[in-house]
Amino acid sequence: MSEISSTTPQSRGPADHSVREQIVEAAEEHFRHYGYGKTTVSDLARAIGFSKAYIYKFFDSKQAIGEAICSRTLNTIIVLVEEAVADAPTPTKKIRSMFNSQVATATSLFFNDRKLYDIAAHSAGEGWPSARAYAHRIEQILMEIVREGRESGEFERKTPLDETVHSIFLVMLPYVNPLLLQHNLDLIEEAPVQLSNLVLRSLAP
Amino acid sequence: MSEISSTTPQSRGPADHSVREQIVEAAEEHFRHYGYGKTTVSDLARAIGFSKAYIYKFFDSKQAIGEAICSRTLNTIIVLVEEAVADAPTPTKKIRSMFNSQVATATSLFFNDRKLYDIAAHSAGEGWPSARAYAHRIEQILMEIVREGRESGEFERKTPLDETVHSIFLVMLPYVNPLLLQHNLDLIEEAPVQLSNLVLRSLAP
Repeated sequence: MSEISSTTPQSRGPADHSVREQIVEAAEEHFRHYGYGKTTVSDLARAIGFSKAYIYKFFDSKQAIGEAICSRTLNTIIVLVEEAVADAPTPTKKIRSMFNSQVATATSLFFNDRKLYDIAAHSAGEGWPSARAYAHRIEQILMEIVREGRESGEFERKTPLDETVHSIFLVMLPYVNPLLLQHNLDLIEEAPVQLSNLVLRSLAP
Repeated sequence: MSEISSTTPQSRGPADHSVREQIVEAAEEHFRHYGYGKTTVSDLARAIGFSKAYIYKFFDSKQAIGEAICSRTLNTIIVLVEEAVADAPTPTKKIRSMFNSQVATATSLFFNDRKLYDIAAHSAGEGWPSARAYAHRIEQILMEIVREGRESGEFERKTPLDETVHSIFLVMLPYVNPLLLQHNLDLIEEAPVQLSNLVLRSLAP
């Protein structure tokens, strides 16, 4: 299982994992109802029943709590994408599975619940560490698939590996970044199929 | 030269082309300063020095004026893209020129002047006829290039033509639609090159 860790300093007090978890879960519930943008740490403290000072023992800021929620959500997507890729028998099928599972999971997590999209949009728009780590991990998974396909002779080897991988990542990006994905929701049925086909044609030896 | 015509009913009075043009030009100037969203037809009338009733003789609504401005702007992009494509000597180079010129022109027109982006965003987000006609024309130009490349033996012919063209269009879409392009401005240097290369690999016979 992957771990997208935030590099924002978050914990101040002792590493009391369960209290941190409790705050994150309550905050996620609160953000889902009221949105991330409009909520203050005071609102959260009141809703959770902790003092503001106690919350600040665990998190530096509202963004740090948002980051923790984003990391959890983006980790969920990564785990599901990794499972889909692991289940696919060939590099060709892994490319398709990756695109499909990424779009399906991100759409479901961000857009079936618009309020969670709200945090994801802040994360992507402001380049939070969780969003950057997520994009980086997606590119890494692509790298592993392309490398495997080159080794098995399924994919071409003339183009520099980095260029191949990064250009496929750019094709997927509008479906990875929730700020772009929100404008592509009418394409989520056809785009993964059509774009995977195009990418696979570009990978043909 | 292409003509992106709006199918929205616009003219009510006699086809007084020069008055329509005068209103469109004044409105564009006004929108550039104050934004499309915040301006009313009354504001426009006051700024132009016409009565509201006189403006309504030529345009049904503010959107109809916005449509006329969008059509002009999008036509400018299409004309520049067509020129770039015509100047490129081979289908391979036409693909690159098309991508480059489209991104460069759209970025310059929509984002060097954020207020004009405001109208383009309304047009794209609400599916105005001008935006749909523009996307359609971009896909048509792609069709012409791919067909030429297939005839000359430069591009593969196994994939159905419609599928090839539409999938390339999907790759370009995040740089064609201003709502997506706004989030891709940090990629406008590398993306046209990397994505053209990937598309051209996918077109290899």
